[in-house]
Amino acid sequence: MSNFWARTITGLSMAFILLAALYFSGWIFATIFLLITLAGLWEFYGLVSGENVHPQKIYGTAAGALVYIITTCFFFIPGETSGGLLWKNAPVITIVITLFLPFIFEIFRKKSAPLSNISITILGIIYISVPFALLNAFSKQDQVQFHGIPEFLTGYFILTWLYDTAAYLYGKQFGKHKFFERISPKKTWEGTIAGITVAFLTSLALSLLFRDVSQSNWLILTFIVVIFGTFGDLVESLFKRGLHVKDSGTILPGHGGILDRFDTMLISSPFVFVYFYLLNTI
Amino acid sequence: MSNFWARTITGLSMAFILLAALYFSGWIFATIFLLITLAGLWEFYGLVSGENVHPQKIYGTAAGALVYIITTCFFFIPGETSGGLLWKNAPVITIVITLFLPFIFEIFRKKSAPLSNISITILGIIYISVPFALLNAFSKQDQVQFHGIPEFLTGYFILTWLYDTAAYLYGKQFGKHKFFERISPKKTWEGTIAGITVAFLTSLALSLLFRDVSQSNWLILTFIVVIFGTFGDLVESLFKRGLHVKDSGTILPGHGGILDRFDTMLISSPFVFVYFYLLNTI
Repeated sequence: MSNFWARTITGLSMAFILLAALYFSGWIFATIFLLITLAGLWEFYGLVSGENVHPQKIYGTAAGALVYIITTCFFFIPGETSGGLLWKNAPVITIVITLFLPFIFEIFRKKSAPLSNISITILGIIYISVPFALLNAFSKQDQVQFHGIPEFLTGYFILTWLYDTAAYLYGKQFGKHKFFERISPKKTWEGTIAGITVAFLTSLALSLLFRDVSQSNWLILTFIVVIFGTFGDLVESLFKRGLHVKDSGTILPGHGGILDRFDTMLISSPFVFVYFYLLNTI
Repeated sequence: MSNFWARTITGLSMAFILLAALYFSGWIFATIFLLITLAGLWEFYGLVSGENVHPQKIYGTAAGALVYIITTCFFFIPGETSGGLLWKNAPVITIVITLFLPFIFEIFRKKSAPLSNISITILGIIYISVPFALLNAFSKQDQVQFHGIPEFLTGYFILTWLYDTAAYLYGKQFGKHKFFERISPKKTWEGTIAGITVAFLTSLALSLLFRDVSQSNWLILTFIVVIFGTFGDLVESLFKRGLHVKDSGTILPGHGGILDRFDTMLISSPFVFVYFYLLNTI
């Protein structure tokens, strides 16, 4: 039971901190997620390092943080005020350089399995920095604000947390039928269905609270959260199974590591981003 | 000696076809490089597939081709004529989706080493599609044209080929001191220095022929070709050594595979791209 309380207190504190940061300033929110990105990258590279794989841990963490910072600044500072084309291309240039330097560094490293070392160094940046950096696109570029809170991003967090929590709690108590036993033996159909039910009830509540986003948009966001969030959970389980570990880390009491806590967002965020951009640009 | 002639004929034909395509139309050039990209991706995934790694070969090849096509169209068709913001974001959206789908597909694959499978699938797209797609940025967006030929790109090809050829021929004949024996035992200092000499003489000739690009720009381009081209050669040797193969393929008589022939460009193209953008935008 102490694990239950640790989990509850950690979860509620994180939710409170992130929502408060969103309310006060997108920059505070971005800074908190920079720390989460750094911890996540370090955890990822530590986790995957082994006898046969030697990712460029320090480079990957530094380059991942740089990709996060440049992309976030790009979302936050409008191009017109800060120098035109070079600025507009800054994320592209940063991403191009950071993705190709690991190839060159590996030449001098004298480690076995160079192909895996390079590819897993790059994977960390894509799997962790990109999804977290994209969150800042919803936070700042969203025109739809409710008393200073970006509605879309707030709704995305609330949906994700309630879906996860409902699925976990209901599944633990009443779960019988396995959902995807090969990868995640604890997941059950009962938990998943409870999570989906709660997510759709939440989307109804959100459409009443945040009226600037239409009800159909809340429904579509919920679909994305449920489907790609579930994939995100399974992807992380797949990784942990391949590496024979139970938790990705121990930094968050009751939750395990950063990747354990944010696994669903790591896959759903990019797809929410794409939907968000289509919404704003068509 | 027959290998020498096969190599010469293949090299000259390729140079002729690519330069002719550049002269007639950037679209023809882009189409030829789409075929090279497809062949390169297929070769790469075949090469790295083994007992312990099972990349998503068909997906990687298709997604890599898509990234190439969308990025090229983005370079070629100005945003204003084709629908504004959605179009401007098309490459970003395509890249985000194509990089995150392999995570999801791997859930359903039941293969060992899922982390490597995903990361190497993504690596193929980055290592092959991105450098080749970036070539089209120089071809179309270059304002500096000489009788319809994009000067910068033409110079880049000529420099790369002559540097490679001089280093290979001189090193083969007179090479004694090993350059980077651990990775590429056939490379010698003599060959490298001959290559560098020929490259800088070529850049002088280019600055006389194509006067719209300044001499200092030709010199900087030559530095990038020599340094990052050499890295590109070593990166490919590193991969082949790790995989215990001599050539990456057999598609090009006398040269081996696509990756053997274009190895230097796979690493130099992204850095030339960055320089090219800085030139045009500062």
